[in-house]
Amino acid sequence: MLDYPEYRRLKYLVEKHLLDFLPEIDQNSISLYDSMRYSLKAEGKRIRPILLLAACELTGCDPMQALPYACAIEYIHTYSLIHDDLPAMDNDDLRRGKPTNHKVFGEATAILAGDGLLSTAFEAMNKDLLLYLDQPVALKQRIRATSEIAKGCGCRGMIAGQIADIEAESQVVSAELVGYIHANKTAALIEAAVVAGGYIGGANAELIEVLRSYGENLGLAFQVADDLLDVRGNEALTGKKVGKDESHNKATFPVVYGVERSARRLEELTENALAALSKYRDKAEFFVEIARELSIRQN
Amino acid sequence: MLDYPEYRRLKYLVEKHLLDFLPEIDQNSISLYDSMRYSLKAEGKRIRPILLLAACELTGCDPMQALPYACAIEYIHTYSLIHDDLPAMDNDDLRRGKPTNHKVFGEATAILAGDGLLSTAFEAMNKDLLLYLDQPVALKQRIRATSEIAKGCGCRGMIAGQIADIEAESQVVSAELVGYIHANKTAALIEAAVVAGGYIGGANAELIEVLRSYGENLGLAFQVADDLLDVRGNEALTGKKVGKDESHNKATFPVVYGVERSARRLEELTENALAALSKYRDKAEFFVEIARELSIRQN
Repeated sequence: MLDYPEYRRLKYLVEKHLLDFLPEIDQNSISLYDSMRYSLKAEGKRIRPILLLAACELTGCDPMQALPYACAIEYIHTYSLIHDDLPAMDNDDLRRGKPTNHKVFGEATAILAGDGLLSTAFEAMNKDLLLYLDQPVALKQRIRATSEIAKGCGCRGMIAGQIADIEAESQVVSAELVGYIHANKTAALIEAAVVAGGYIGGANAELIEVLRSYGENLGLAFQVADDLLDVRGNEALTGKKVGKDESHNKATFPVVYGVERSARRLEELTENALAALSKYRDKAEFFVEIARELSIRQN
Repeated sequence: MLDYPEYRRLKYLVEKHLLDFLPEIDQNSISLYDSMRYSLKAEGKRIRPILLLAACELTGCDPMQALPYACAIEYIHTYSLIHDDLPAMDNDDLRRGKPTNHKVFGEATAILAGDGLLSTAFEAMNKDLLLYLDQPVALKQRIRATSEIAKGCGCRGMIAGQIADIEAESQVVSAELVGYIHANKTAALIEAAVVAGGYIGGANAELIEVLRSYGENLGLAFQVADDLLDVRGNEALTGKKVGKDESHNKATFPVVYGVERSARRLEELTENALAALSKYRDKAEFFVEIARELSIRQN
């Protein structure tokens, strides 16, 4: 699973530099630092930063150029997991087989660690902009990338999906609502990752639209696959209890459409993602591979 | 108190436009919107956005030019209050005499409303940058303003102060720690407001340093005054119980230095703030006035 060499290479790059943009350690706020680092160091697929770097590379640009943005998007994803796991939210004790942040550091620190990671993400991107003040073309591309990420994680993106997800627990779940949650909670940030990487690399408007369509379909597919894993996954591989979503009355694809139709939808979304790339197929081998692998993933 | 005409004029401007940068209402996330709006509409002094607009104006620039940044900084301040009031943090039921956000909307929504306001702050500033892509001088100034705010609210700014503040509750409080908390929890964002306003207006390096020194001293004075109000304030005016800090073992100035020395320190910081302005005194009447008023404030 996701053992493609290009994936491993980019994952190595992300993990090697993931702590580079955290604030320097300071004795009076060391538990904040430890708590942020704890969740960043937890095993993860690193899908969002890897897609961002790969999109930058697809344009012919050195992925190291996009590193602050790749790390920023993983900080944002990680903050969302820390807050999502809090007792007032999903109340999870374990994530990827390890105690959740608030179980280790306490709720107050976990809340602040989430806030800190979100702030650090924007601080890292804005610091990067300062380095390009005298390179107008690169600067514009980076501002567009930052804005794309801000939109993806914001109130008309990831946070909208999270509030709808929480509220759905006390509602009869409709197809429209599940669509809304998938598009916002998951797809928005994945789409933002792919598009931001494209901007940083200097992609033209046509390629940006290709990347946007790919990212959106891949993001939706990713969440359908996640929902399906909850129903029929292998607990040893996913690290999560099978059937957890249903017992929490979560708004998922299989709840609304059943397993079979969800599996067909996953195939369809994967095909859409691949179709978006058709013109760039020979240069976009990595994107083809990752879409295929994610559609059959086991964890 | 704070009834200076310039203050009222800028406060009117802030409050008139404060909701302008929130996301459009969306049926599936309406409680998020309502919750963010609830806390933004609560009465507040609006010190940070007013200082930002005034600093922009001091440079001779129309304060409307700085509006997205002024609103962004009030979103950031408001998010910090929502998260600070949560049961896992200060566990406050009332703020400015009204039920706190989580008391009205529940903890999950309050956490997301805080996250949403922080994200929206950066989204608003980054959207503003997109409008200036073809105006290189103004663009640089605005990037510097954004970075200043990002730093002020981040892990080497406001959040560092918050984690130290929380942790101080279980420690013997030292003078060094109180200084750290004041500098980070309060002064960092106030300093950022003043400096960001200066950048947007096109202040030169010398004026930026003047504004920085003023903002830092004013921010420190603001927190000493706040600590003093907790000890000797009028509950009817402050809307807070007198002696609350001491009963929570908060790291405050009077706890370490006593009331009398704290009052002297407040005078000294106010004088420092005014001294920083000396060269600009005739243009900076508003800043002089606000420093004086804040040093004798009753709420």
